[in-house]
Amino acid sequence: MIAVLKNTATKEQIDNLVGWFEDQGLKVNESKGDYCTVIGLIGDTTKIDIEMLQGLDIIDSVTRVSEPFKKANRKFHPEDTVIDCGGVLIGGGNFAVMAGPCSVESREQIIETAKAVKDAGATMLRGGAFKPRTSPYDFQGLKEKGIELLLEAKAVTGLPIVTEIMNEEHIPLFADIDVIQVGARNMQNFELLKALGKTNKPILLKRGLSATMKELLMSAEYIMSEGNENVILCERGIRTYETYTRNTFDLSAIPMLHELTHLPVVADPSHATGRRSLIRPMSMAATACGADALEIEVHPNPSKAFSDGAQSLTPDMFKEVMEQINKVRGIL
Amino acid sequence: MIAVLKNTATKEQIDNLVGWFEDQGLKVNESKGDYCTVIGLIGDTTKIDIEMLQGLDIIDSVTRVSEPFKKANRKFHPEDTVIDCGGVLIGGGNFAVMAGPCSVESREQIIETAKAVKDAGATMLRGGAFKPRTSPYDFQGLKEKGIELLLEAKAVTGLPIVTEIMNEEHIPLFADIDVIQVGARNMQNFELLKALGKTNKPILLKRGLSATMKELLMSAEYIMSEGNENVILCERGIRTYETYTRNTFDLSAIPMLHELTHLPVVADPSHATGRRSLIRPMSMAATACGADALEIEVHPNPSKAFSDGAQSLTPDMFKEVMEQINKVRGIL
Amino acid sequence: MIAVLKNTATKEQIDNLVGWFEDQGLKVNESKGDYCTVIGLIGDTTKIDIEMLQGLDIIDSVTRVSEPFKKANRKFHPEDTVIDCGGVLIGGGNFAVMAGPCSVESREQIIETAKAVKDAGATMLRGGAFKPRTSPYDFQGLKEKGIELLLEAKAVTGLPIVTEIMNEEHIPLFADIDVIQVGARNMQNFELLKALGKTNKPILLKRGLSATMKELLMSAEYIMSEGNENVILCERGIRTYETYTRNTFDLSAIPMLHELTHLPVVADPSHATGRRSLIRPMSMAATACGADALEIEVHPNPSKAFSDGAQSLTPDMFKEVMEQINKVRGIL
Amino acid sequence: MIAVLKNTATKEQIDNLVGWFEDQGLKVNESKGDYCTVIGLIGDTTKIDIEMLQGLDIIDSVTRVSEPFKKANRKFHPEDTVIDCGGVLIGGGNFAVMAGPCSVESREQIIETAKAVKDAGATMLRGGAFKPRTSPYDFQGLKEKGIELLLEAKAVTGLPIVTEIMNEEHIPLFADIDVIQVGARNMQNFELLKALGKTNKPILLKRGLSATMKELLMSAEYIMSEGNENVILCERGIRTYETYTRNTFDLSAIPMLHELTHLPVVADPSHATGRRSLIRPMSMAATACGADALEIEVHPNPSKAFSDGAQSLTPDMFKEVMEQINKVRGIL
Repeated sequence: MIAVLKNTATKEQIDNLVGWFEDQGLKVNESKGDYCTVIGLIGDTTKIDIEMLQGLDIIDSVTRVSEPFKKANRKFHPEDTVIDCGGVLIGGGNFAVMAGPCSVESREQIIETAKAVKDAGATMLRGGAFKPRTSPYDFQGLKEKGIELLLEAKAVTGLPIVTEIMNEEHIPLFADIDVIQVGARNMQNFELLKALGKTNKPILLKRGLSATMKELLMSAEYIMSEGNENVILCERGIRTYETYTRNTFDLSAIPMLHELTHLPVVADPSHATGRRSLIRPMSMAATACGADALEIEVHPNPSKAFSDGAQSLTPDMFKEVMEQINKVRGIL
Repeated sequence: MIAVLKNTATKEQIDNLVGWFEDQGLKVNESKGDYCTVIGLIGDTTKIDIEMLQGLDIIDSVTRVSEPFKKANRKFHPEDTVIDCGGVLIGGGNFAVMAGPCSVESREQIIETAKAVKDAGATMLRGGAFKPRTSPYDFQGLKEKGIELLLEAKAVTGLPIVTEIMNEEHIPLFADIDVIQVGARNMQNFELLKALGKTNKPILLKRGLSATMKELLMSAEYIMSEGNENVILCERGIRTYETYTRNTFDLSAIPMLHELTHLPVVADPSHATGRRSLIRPMSMAATACGADALEIEVHPNPSKAFSDGAQSLTPDMFKEVMEQINKVRGIL
Repeated sequence: MIAVLKNTATKEQIDNLVGWFEDQGLKVNESKGDYCTVIGLIGDTTKIDIEMLQGLDIIDSVTRVSEPFKKANRKFHPEDTVIDCGGVLIGGGNFAVMAGPCSVESREQIIETAKAVKDAGATMLRGGAFKPRTSPYDFQGLKEKGIELLLEAKAVTGLPIVTEIMNEEHIPLFADIDVIQVGARNMQNFELLKALGKTNKPILLKRGLSATMKELLMSAEYIMSEGNENVILCERGIRTYETYTRNTFDLSAIPMLHELTHLPVVADPSHATGRRSLIRPMSMAATACGADALEIEVHPNPSKAFSDGAQSLTPDMFKEVMEQINKVRGIL
Repeated sequence: MIAVLKNTATKEQIDNLVGWFEDQGLKVNESKGDYCTVIGLIGDTTKIDIEMLQGLDIIDSVTRVSEPFKKANRKFHPEDTVIDCGGVLIGGGNFAVMAGPCSVESREQIIETAKAVKDAGATMLRGGAFKPRTSPYDFQGLKEKGIELLLEAKAVTGLPIVTEIMNEEHIPLFADIDVIQVGARNMQNFELLKALGKTNKPILLKRGLSATMKELLMSAEYIMSEGNENVILCERGIRTYETYTRNTFDLSAIPMLHELTHLPVVADPSHATGRRSLIRPMSMAATACGADALEIEVHPNPSKAFSDGAQSLTPDMFKEVMEQINKVRGIL
């Protein structure tokens, strides 16, 4: 961590500050320039509150040299983390495809879709039981009933289940779910993250609509710092001013996160683009740049879907996408 | 609501769709062009799921003509809502100033600050007991103890209290708090919004880091649709690529929201700019364009604040800001 | 085009407006709702000024149903455009790789790089002679001398040349250049676009830092409407708040633009990411989602590059990237 | 400037780098940490190419401590610059209002508007002769004829003229114009900036759609470094994902730029918001936070304006806005 002090800082003020840093167990290196004094802090600065420092009258700016995330940091954990999701491995070269409808709508719909995606090569089933919707008047999901139906679909097909949680009070309902998803809008619901950190379930953490990669990693750190290190990150598009696509799919985040962290990274082309016609090319692209898994919306009859129909594939389209993805996997 | 159909839509498909709209109680107006057919829907379309429509194969695009928010909509409620916040009125021409530290740190700090901001003219006390921090390693607030200290400060000064909630399980702790704040990161924590909608407390709802005004209003709608119509909106800066300021203060949102909704709108220059030197000019600007209240960070000794020190004023600086704000109020 | 009129519009005002639309040769379809009247305009609305309409007192909103771009629009030109770039074809299934240094620095550097990238499989040479730099104090390019050196490198290797123009006065200097590049910062330098529209050179038009795809296409339209239809679009990253990567590489723009337009689309992973370690995975991803060409920075000795060194590959690294790209091409 | 070196840097590499810095006349301070070595550079680093440094294999990151702008920097020029715009002073406490139509349409329109805005208190006349339009099919301005009409309006009213330039070849046409405006889309048209830097005209430089304040200042630096220090900056809204307003008016930029630079700062609420109803409140806000001038669109009959009608005021509305602005000026 590097702090640049203002010209106006007195020797006494600087000495006080240096003393305080040393009290925190840091080694301090001071360098005086014509326009400013620069202080380098050496040691474990992750617990130093950068905003507090920036508030000091004598400080011009503070920059972190080392990342503020620790447990998620590849520097301290160089090997890829591999996460067991109900028998399906994600990370470390293992590749998974989670497919299914945006929302669970009925027993027939979810079981039919589960069979279809399994036939096409999906290795996990996704489906929303609790749905975060922008409008209180939109369909909010089948809730408990949806969880039950997902577990029925698992019993029939053997596919492990990934589904979203919105409230820590619901954690007991997820006891038999294989992967608990935290949606983009809850990426910084720190209370939910801490509660999930006390479980031992794999957590699929989606990047927030305007979250930086660093913030995504800090949210993973919230879960990990409570003891649960089974975190899977997910790039699902960020908000920009572009309107032809629903979001902007930040695919560079996949190899970039792989440099920064040992956690697996999943890509969700369905939410990222919001357009059915883009799923095939963007699934291939996400696979080509190293995604550890894909999450793709498939609906037996997209036109009747209760939500997000525009971005769902039919099972036939999904089959074709799987073939293309497998070709890309073949050359990696 | 206007739906544009693709060239490829057959007469039968169009008739089916029109029939379905009519079943929803909507009047349908069809207009055929050279390149497309346009369908206008007349009636209450707030419950139509726009994304579902966009997923239909025969549909090119769908546009809402009327806003999806109802209870918050000024069209259906032309008079300003006035909210009683522990005796202090906000909205409808009433003006309030909420001041206090980012975090409650100690009895001495919060009582000293409460007295100082009251002397300077503040009408409410703000202070964080539960703190949403990006890093799990940063100070997370005094929690229950912080709530107690805020209530002590209220007992001493008579200032009503506004403080942030992060978890619906904590609602009972807020029984004597006057205004419950929902932070930017929880603006779309829909479970929390619904739980607060079942209380009768005034709710100060902060705009999310990348939320549109429409989304802010839809989140207000979540609270209101559960029965609690005491919602105060807050502009606190949105995320852009600019780095000199912490966020970009979207002051146009103040008069724009006043056109769209009858709810009061508060401005928070401290979080919006993150720079102490900008608080005075931006408080004046926010007042000049019609903010119903300001929320300003004041700390007896900003350099020692546990969090957000860089943006806190000293009581003396705050006094000066109040004088300038009052001058602006004088000419409105 | 659809115009929604306000409640307050009188019959006379509406009749006047309808009459004016009919004078412009448009067919008008009127539909009255409870809250508003909707007017659908049928015919060629590309020359209607949407902003002028929005200014009319009786109008609530105006939406274009058809795109405002015409010559670039795939609807009116369904076949892929193939552009001959000094013998190398781009578009319509042909694939090219433009490689070379950010800036031309010396005869030795550019000739050495040209040979190296040709050996590795590049089909065109890129290199900056005129350099748009944020700071007037940064290196501005070798200018005329740089153009000469590029042409020498072409003479030696046979590789066609792509290089950037910043000023219409320089067009004569580009007489022997194969593809003229317009940089992101000049994407809406409409005077330059019009001047290039009067040449018959292939133009590589880079997307602006915060340009939408529609704006990129409208800028292509500026060139095409002057007579030059040899336009190649280029995605080079857009500005977001993310900081780990220099820009956010909007790869979805590649298949999306392919739906909207018949023009070829190039991807530039070097500028989009600003990080050497991301070039390989993002080149593979861009190829996988259908880019017609890639533009990649290669420098014989990246550490000494005058500009953009951080994102340049060595010739050896580039060779490896080419191998991976070719594998991806093999499965398309 | 601070460079953080990678762990893997050898002593020899570090010594070479330090030597090179010393050759550039810089003092170097080295500090070794557990994870990295930090090098502080002291002296004039404005000419060091930060991107070149970032490209070096041994470098992890480089941060500028001092700003890269020099002539525009308030540190080296503490007093406000006051610019004489045809007799009207801007900056240093002087306040101006530039009003007029978006486009010059006819002699009658511009002269009528000039008289009306003068009566209402405007001190300068604005009006577009050369119009940068997103679409080549939209009205492009009256060009030379527009300049002539503006000069006629000046002859009649005495109001100095501000109008936009798009092409350096047109500079001779602007010989009698008082202030030459550079539009947002040309903010980084460096060739145009350099050409304007060789004139002695006041230049009104608009912030680009996604430009940071630093980039705006660097563009001012382009003009100033060629000799013309008469630069006026203009905040006119930046692009975000918000759609109710055309752009997001970054009013914090006004006091922030005043800290960073001695140049005057103008606010343009018309382009920033794109909504007539927001001009009054946002003009008051911009004045309250210290704008040195406002640029406001006024049209005798906004409904017939060729461009940007939605954001133009009528002369009567403008008169009211002027009264409010003057009240705000009265309390500053």
